[in-house]
Amino acid sequence: MKFARLGPAGQERPVVIADGKAYDLSGVTADIDGAFLAGGGLDTAWQAVGDLPELAGAEQLRTGSPVARPGAIVCVGMNYAEHAAESGAKPPEVPIIFLKTPNTVGGPDDRVAIPPGSERTDWEVELGVVIGKRALYLDSPEQSMAHVAGFLVGNDLSERRYQLEESGGQWSKGKCAPGFSPLGPWLVTPDEVDHRNLRLRSWVNGEPRQDSNTKDMVFGVEYLVHNLSRYLALEPGDVILTGTPQGVALSGRFPYLKAGDVVELEIEGLGRQRQEFVATDRA
Amino acid sequence: MKFARLGPAGQERPVVIADGKAYDLSGVTADIDGAFLAGGGLDTAWQAVGDLPELAGAEQLRTGSPVARPGAIVCVGMNYAEHAAESGAKPPEVPIIFLKTPNTVGGPDDRVAIPPGSERTDWEVELGVVIGKRALYLDSPEQSMAHVAGFLVGNDLSERRYQLEESGGQWSKGKCAPGFSPLGPWLVTPDEVDHRNLRLRSWVNGEPRQDSNTKDMVFGVEYLVHNLSRYLALEPGDVILTGTPQGVALSGRFPYLKAGDVVELEIEGLGRQRQEFVATDRA
Repeated sequence: MKFARLGPAGQERPVVIADGKAYDLSGVTADIDGAFLAGGGLDTAWQAVGDLPELAGAEQLRTGSPVARPGAIVCVGMNYAEHAAESGAKPPEVPIIFLKTPNTVGGPDDRVAIPPGSERTDWEVELGVVIGKRALYLDSPEQSMAHVAGFLVGNDLSERRYQLEESGGQWSKGKCAPGFSPLGPWLVTPDEVDHRNLRLRSWVNGEPRQDSNTKDMVFGVEYLVHNLSRYLALEPGDVILTGTPQGVALSGRFPYLKAGDVVELEIEGLGRQRQEFVATDRA
Repeated sequence: MKFARLGPAGQERPVVIADGKAYDLSGVTADIDGAFLAGGGLDTAWQAVGDLPELAGAEQLRTGSPVARPGAIVCVGMNYAEHAAESGAKPPEVPIIFLKTPNTVGGPDDRVAIPPGSERTDWEVELGVVIGKRALYLDSPEQSMAHVAGFLVGNDLSERRYQLEESGGQWSKGKCAPGFSPLGPWLVTPDEVDHRNLRLRSWVNGEPRQDSNTKDMVFGVEYLVHNLSRYLALEPGDVILTGTPQGVALSGRFPYLKAGDVVELEIEGLGRQRQEFVATDRA
């Protein structure tokens, strides 16, 4: 099953996508959010799909994040060994987590403003995990998938000077500019993909940057959900961004983003994002 | 003006406190949240106070956080020089920020569960700043107070092993257990206190721990709001916890918290908190 939210920012309509068509979920739920996911809304929606009206003009609409604003965006750092190496670090022995503010969420194709004076804005394609059921103090990784609603593409955008040089070492400062968490286009249920083996890629102005596979994650999805639940209550609608592979500008091999650049991201089975970067006063 | 939210968790009623009495704001607003603050709700409520009914039985009710769940809790680390020293660090040259998940918020007198297996749960009394108007890319600290709705007492609870030893250096992991951000009892408007000169104290089982003054902050409120607005959009209802002074268990001078301990916190003019700590299965 694929779910999406289509329409202007703040006025997205929930839809389910089947056979390439968008079916309007507005009669079933006002939004795809934590309450909807916690109530088993995805299954309900899927069972109703034959009775749902097609959303007219869907292909003309903006695509929003496929989940409404989450309560938390939990990010995992250095979760691909080769990315840790390009960042000058060893692979971590435990998951390294940091948070982004939920107001960083944007649609997958929204323009993104480079913060004023930023010279080190960087991309990070990541597998995103959407929580469907509250997870706290899980006993084992085997319990994790019962708490996962689905997966999505995320771009964990960063300003590296803010993150690393003006931060005193705490990364969130470089992760929270407006629009710095494009999510989507779809929320894809776990039955549709093998999340342990998904190719993920990024491009800048059409040139390849990242090209890896989720099988190279240091800590996999099941381990992460279990482990994170030791430290915080993961709630329905929350998003875990599971870390990025090698091939970002921080490596020194590629230039940082500037106004006019176009970033594209794709994860096998989860769809594709395309963001034009603009100066802040053009956002 | 003092505002509060009284009642069972999740069903709090908004009130304004005048002459020691609680006046019911339910007819004015459903809640004290970002939308209410952004719409100038505090002033509206205060003007209406003569027409508001007193809330019967208010003194019997639980006190909740005086603001509904924020979009972000932004914390400032090492913002008192002597606390930095007791933590083994120098005073920072720039504000060090990290985030807590918004689902950590609790009422000022709620019991707090010590996480399973935790041996290093620690208290931190902090001046909390509640944002009343969106702040992004402010030009100067002089603009900051126009974006502040008021102040409150916050306890930035931490699990130090999670924060410092199991974290890879990113502190949020030890800051996000359920109930780890008691806020309140009141939201106090800026005209009622001199936020640059407030005594703040904490006790454990009646014994003094922290005793300092906000005038010893490395970075003051106006500087912080301006500086943070360079990195993220502060939104109405968001809370900034501005850092804690010396006198926490991390210093090595006091034991960490265990089940049965009682922590009290007070900031001059902003009220007092009292939390009993319990084992997780008693929470």
